[in-house]
Amino acid sequence: MTDSAPVQPPQPRTPAPRSRARMLELVFPKDTNYLGTAFGGFVLSLMDKAASVAAVRHAGPGGAVVTARMDGVDFRTPIRVGDAVALDARVVRVGRSSMTIQVDVYREHMASGEQELATTGLFVFVAIGEDGTPRPVPPLAEGLDIASAHPDAEARP
Amino acid sequence: MTDSAPVQPPQPRTPAPRSRARMLELVFPKDTNYLGTAFGGFVLSLMDKAASVAAVRHAGPGGAVVTARMDGVDFRTPIRVGDAVALDARVVRVGRSSMTIQVDVYREHMASGEQELATTGLFVFVAIGEDGTPRPVPPLAEGLDIASAHPDAEARP
Amino acid sequence: MTDSAPVQPPQPRTPAPRSRARMLELVFPKDTNYLGTAFGGFVLSLMDKAASVAAVRHAGPGGAVVTARMDGVDFRTPIRVGDAVALDARVVRVGRSSMTIQVDVYREHMASGEQELATTGLFVFVAIGEDGTPRPVPPLAEGLDIASAHPDAEARP
Amino acid sequence: MTDSAPVQPPQPRTPAPRSRARMLELVFPKDTNYLGTAFGGFVLSLMDKAASVAAVRHAGPGGAVVTARMDGVDFRTPIRVGDAVALDARVVRVGRSSMTIQVDVYREHMASGEQELATTGLFVFVAIGEDGTPRPVPPLAEGLDIASAHPDAEARP
Amino acid sequence: MTDSAPVQPPQPRTPAPRSRARMLELVFPKDTNYLGTAFGGFVLSLMDKAASVAAVRHAGPGGAVVTARMDGVDFRTPIRVGDAVALDARVVRVGRSSMTIQVDVYREHMASGEQELATTGLFVFVAIGEDGTPRPVPPLAEGLDIASAHPDAEARP
Amino acid sequence: MTDSAPVQPPQPRTPAPRSRARMLELVFPKDTNYLGTAFGGFVLSLMDKAASVAAVRHAGPGGAVVTARMDGVDFRTPIRVGDAVALDARVVRVGRSSMTIQVDVYREHMASGEQELATTGLFVFVAIGEDGTPRPVPPLAEGLDIASAHPDAEARP
Ligand SMILES: CC(C)(COP(=O)(O)OP(=O)(O)OC[C@H]1O[C@@H](n2cnc3c(N)ncnc32)[C@H](O)[C@@H]1OP(=O)(O)O)[C@@H](O)C(=O)NCCC(=O)NCCS
Ligand SMILES: CC(C)(COP(=O)(O)OP(=O)(O)OC[C@H]1O[C@@H](n2cnc3c(N)ncnc32)[C@H](O)[C@@H]1OP(=O)(O)O)[C@@H](O)C(=O)NCCC(=O)NCCS
Ligand SMILES: CC(C)(COP(=O)(O)OP(=O)(O)OC[C@H]1O[C@@H](n2cnc3c(N)ncnc32)[C@H](O)[C@@H]1OP(=O)(O)O)[C@@H](O)C(=O)NCCC(=O)NCCS
Ligand SMILES: CC(C)(COP(=O)(O)OP(=O)(O)OC[C@H]1O[C@@H](n2cnc3c(N)ncnc32)[C@H](O)[C@@H]1OP(=O)(O)O)[C@@H](O)C(=O)NCCC(=O)NCCS
Repeated sequence: MTDSAPVQPPQPRTPAPRSRARMLELVFPKDTNYLGTAFGGFVLSLMDKAASVAAVRHAGPGGAVVTARMDGVDFRTPIRVGDAVALDARVVRVGRSSMTIQVDVYREHMASGEQELATTGLFVFVAIGEDGTPRPVPPLAEGLDIASAHPDAEARP
Repeated sequence: MTDSAPVQPPQPRTPAPRSRARMLELVFPKDTNYLGTAFGGFVLSLMDKAASVAAVRHAGPGGAVVTARMDGVDFRTPIRVGDAVALDARVVRVGRSSMTIQVDVYREHMASGEQELATTGLFVFVAIGEDGTPRPVPPLAEGLDIASAHPDAEARP
Repeated sequence: MTDSAPVQPPQPRTPAPRSRARMLELVFPKDTNYLGTAFGGFVLSLMDKAASVAAVRHAGPGGAVVTARMDGVDFRTPIRVGDAVALDARVVRVGRSSMTIQVDVYREHMASGEQELATTGLFVFVAIGEDGTPRPVPPLAEGLDIASAHPDAEARP
Repeated sequence: MTDSAPVQPPQPRTPAPRSRARMLELVFPKDTNYLGTAFGGFVLSLMDKAASVAAVRHAGPGGAVVTARMDGVDFRTPIRVGDAVALDARVVRVGRSSMTIQVDVYREHMASGEQELATTGLFVFVAIGEDGTPRPVPPLAEGLDIASAHPDAEARP
Repeated sequence: MTDSAPVQPPQPRTPAPRSRARMLELVFPKDTNYLGTAFGGFVLSLMDKAASVAAVRHAGPGGAVVTARMDGVDFRTPIRVGDAVALDARVVRVGRSSMTIQVDVYREHMASGEQELATTGLFVFVAIGEDGTPRPVPPLAEGLDIASAHPDAEARP
Repeated sequence: MTDSAPVQPPQPRTPAPRSRARMLELVFPKDTNYLGTAFGGFVLSLMDKAASVAAVRHAGPGGAVVTARMDGVDFRTPIRVGDAVALDARVVRVGRSSMTIQVDVYREHMASGEQELATTGLFVFVAIGEDGTPRPVPPLAEGLDIASAHPDAEARP
């Protein structure tokens, strides 16, 4: 148990998940108010981060992505210090340069080992080219089967 | 070397602004993507913070406040490294335990000294009592003249 | 309550407050020692930030500003976790390239809704040009009536 | 596109992934040196965080987990500003109170959409009971098929 | 080179440096303005932190210490991204419950390997007992030879 | 009110400590788990920072340094909120472009004023030139007497 990890041989490069991003974050006291409840702004900020990675992964090289819109979000389940927050962001619709990303936020209670859906939000991101103006994005992949999303806990981070 | 600012006489306590909060933040590289444009999540998080202070100031002692809902937000103006962000949050409607807070976000271009409205959002906060359940909040003050909001730049931080 | 905020029409640009900056910050556990009292360094750092925005707003475009001096500060009122800190920074004197900024720090007790002056400091900032050397700054505006400063709680953030 | 997300019906609670945690983080300038290369300490810190979540998920309720040992780590692939870092932490061995967690770190080049294994580490965590002493942990689940680990890019965050 | 560090035998406890604290910090982009020059507030905050450790080490067990006063500070040397900041804080005078701490700040240019004194400040800290009121502190140790301070670069962190 | 610390005469530049770096950090709630025990990742990150400064100081101008390897580390002493962590990093071996740095980590209990060795680690850093490839580093200085390391508490920060 005291040997070092074996040296890695050169590794093949494999594609990252396309059009999707899953994140996991722990909730610390700094993220909470005096009830020990996470700030709405903390969760909104994680949702924007997860959505932006899904959007970058979908849009591909050639520029950046910016948040154009966030739809209304209801916070129905308090998230507390010591919980984990699992996020699953998926591109669910694309226009010419815009992408709509659904972000599901699960609250995980570490002691019970259970996750419950805490909130869901829709973000619109726009892909921007090197020249600073909107650039076209690829269509949604066939087989990106949104309807069957997250039936399986192992699919969550 | 030991002289100092004149000692302050005991200071009267005066009421804080009621039902309102104004904040000012600088935009740093850590808050931006590779275009130098602020993350949506950075601005959403500031908006939630300003709204929560306005809500606490309105609700008064006896517990905390939590974000119950954020309405849709459109981001039409990029905010960049080196800009300032000025926020003006005001309680505009109250229920029994809920407060609706409008948050106006101004982007300030430091070189030109000009501010423009970048986005506006509506948050609902709920006041929570010591027992963890919703508690009643006071009515809106007479004379809180929402219609005349921000005609005057000096009213902004 | 579920409609999104109305789309904003194009907004006029209006001047930012001149030669002044007001900030509001919440005090979190990370900003305090084991008595729950804010670190002096936390407050000094906020004071420098507020002063720098007032100085940039006064100096105008053409470069940056740097702290040249901070005068002695006495801390007579502990600021605690859960308080807010309101800062009001105003340029009160100008030389050729230097600006003296007075920063008043109010401790706001969120439960009582009262603010009291906690400390006051004087900073000297120097405006620096593109070439890295001091550059001239404008005179103080007529009508910047320092004597009448903060008689009115609504003037604070 | 401007309607808010539909209100969620009450959600069933489902088990979190057992004995495993996947994380995704973006690399920002604050995490890098002057070559734009991520600090070793930044990656070690993420590895410890991912390992701790896998360990908590395995150990279950009744206390906390602490890092007892980190095995040698080789950094063979520089990770740069603008990359993402994907981590996959899995409990691969258990003793009475100790858990050995393998953490695989992938560097994801956002423009090419490719991930490559950047480094691998082994951590030992010990479960601690309410009384502060080591407490027993469950055995590894049957069917936790470590050998087949990560053949499939979709299994990564 | 790949063996792990040898297991440590149980270690004796030795006294920490008394009435003194030395710190070393790197300057990152987040600590600087758009000239790449460190904020005054960043340095003031480090100075307060170093002073507080020197004060705690001098005051000993029985409570905490708080900043009562900071004397005027002149910033004559810009500190830049990529520099290190070395601080040396020493208690130089004690009253009944108050301690005066001198903090010397060195700017270290990493490429040249040279340090220069950038600024010096005097802080007053007061020791506070469990009951929240000032408590007595020990006298300065004989042989704490302030006059001979820092003739030797190796004495700096 | 405008008197000030006496103006510093121009200061001689003196060499920084060579091939060594000492750091001191306080442990805050944000650095700890729910037992109030510091995260392993927090300590690993400080160790990497201290090692990197020792390596830069040894390598001298002409580029940067990167972490190539960290050897196994055992954590035998919990470090808690309110403790200080003192680190002493020294280059103990050099190759052509690589440097091996030993980092000793002391836990300081602020109330008792005692330090104990909490853990020790070996890092390998490689010096990188402007062209991004390894560059040669100087030999270890004569008289860098590693054997006599830390017999004297005053040598620690
Ligand atoms: C988003 C932005 C680039 C759009 O620019 P624009 O000049 O309106 O561009 P267009 O009219 O060509 O629209 C481009 C696409 O964005 C979509 N779009 C623009 N604003 C939108 C909004 N508020 N909500 C939803 N979609 C929007 C358009 O429908 C269009 O979609 P399509 O290409 O799929 O058909 C621009 O408004 C902007 O830069 N906003 C600020 C973004 C930002 O900085 N966010 C973070 C703020 S802190
Ligand atoms: C401030 C600084 C630019 C002044 O440079 P300088 O060569 O002394 O410039 P000058 O002698 O022309 O002085 C310029 C102005 O600054 C004023 N000034 C300089 N140092 C000052 C001090 N310590 N206190 C008050 N005013 C000061 C001068 O009085 C003069 O004022 P005026 O133009 O209104 O008449 C220079 O000392 C510097 O770069 N300091 C470091 C600033 C910094 O990085 N701060 C953050 C440190 S972490
Ligand atoms: C980890 C710790 C709880 C072990 O305590 P201990 O008194 O040695 O406990 P035990 O001898 O009963 O050992 C408990 C288990 O830990 C294992 N263990 C202890 N130290 C270990 C090490 N360095 N490496 C690998 N395994 C270790 C033992 O093998 C034993 O495993 P098992 O229960 O599966 O058989 C204790 O050393 C500690 O608190 N360390 C500090 C942890 C910490 O704070 N980490 C973060 C530092 S910043
Ligand atoms: C510092 C403080 C405890 C002093 O309380 P007090 O009621 O004035 O106490 P005393 O009058 O008994 O004075 C105690 C000692 O502090 C010294 N002192 C108090 N204020 C001082 C000041 N501004 N400058 C220098 N010394 C000061 C006194 O001279 C006395 O010294 P001595 O015991 O060595 O003779 C109190 O003012 C306080 O709590 N201030 C806020 C501290 C703080 O929170 N700092 C961080 C702010 S963000």
